[in-house]
Amino acid sequence: MNNQLIVKMVLDRWHAQLKNFNDTLERLTDDQLLLEVSPGRNRGIYLLGHLTAVHDAMIPLLDLGDLMYPDLAAPFLTSADKTVDNLPSAGELRKAWYHVNNELNAKIESLRENWFEKHTAVSDEDFAGEPHRNKLNIMLTRTTHLAYHLGQVRLLGRN
Amino acid sequence: MNNQLIVKMVLDRWHAQLKNFNDTLERLTDDQLLLEVSPGRNRGIYLLGHLTAVHDAMIPLLDLGDLMYPDLAAPFLTSADKTVDNLPSAGELRKAWYHVNNELNAKIESLRENWFEKHTAVSDEDFAGEPHRNKLNIMLTRTTHLAYHLGQVRLLGRN
Repeated sequence: MNNQLIVKMVLDRWHAQLKNFNDTLERLTDDQLLLEVSPGRNRGIYLLGHLTAVHDAMIPLLDLGDLMYPDLAAPFLTSADKTVDNLPSAGELRKAWYHVNNELNAKIESLRENWFEKHTAVSDEDFAGEPHRNKLNIMLTRTTHLAYHLGQVRLLGRN
Repeated sequence: MNNQLIVKMVLDRWHAQLKNFNDTLERLTDDQLLLEVSPGRNRGIYLLGHLTAVHDAMIPLLDLGDLMYPDLAAPFLTSADKTVDNLPSAGELRKAWYHVNNELNAKIESLRENWFEKHTAVSDEDFAGEPHRNKLNIMLTRTTHLAYHLGQVRLLGRN
């Protein structure tokens, strides 16, 4: 099995989930994003900010540069929904979402030969014994993370 | 990159999502499974039956044997929720869920060397030009499918 085919299989899943999320996002109004996905649960806007922050964090994790939106970590990674005042607006988060994913997708194009190197959150020592903790594995885990929350955001509106 | 490592990366995701789903399922009562994941949406019991039928279908797709629960296809694959009378009970579906996944997981152990062969829903001709349509790709797509619905089932109860 050649590496190029494996990388394609994994990236195809990533891009498919991103496309499904974007299709859903485009069908939702800003008002719908302010609703909870189920009573008492996270709001759409929180999940949008959360996914944006998680995808932004993939850039340094894949050693492809710095965070684009470091200010999203506090409200959307380390805080729960409805505990933070003055969140960015739905419009601002939509912009950040597309901005982050477009940059990330452009940057990963350059990784063709380096997908099986370690990511930046694992030490050389640990990587020697755990070679699955490579950059391609980041794409696998973030793809299931995206699918998980997509299932929730899809509950908003009547798509 | 050796094939064994790639297979481990993909199967680790599969098993992690299955474990998360099982943990969630064990925290939910049968009564909670009868609730909709969000108002007007699918009920937990439907999603449990749906995932059981989809995972059952992986057995013939991976050329590992016959369907174990062919009767689940009509209510949970080709019908929407709340359109079919006399669904199996939550208890019956829980049993079928574990039965199917245990069998499937035992069977895929035998696939060590054959993950990159074509699955049974693609022809030899198509596979020649689309070698990513292999058995390992089935695991990738079903893992994101499971994550998608896990995100929804997790909305039930107050876990």
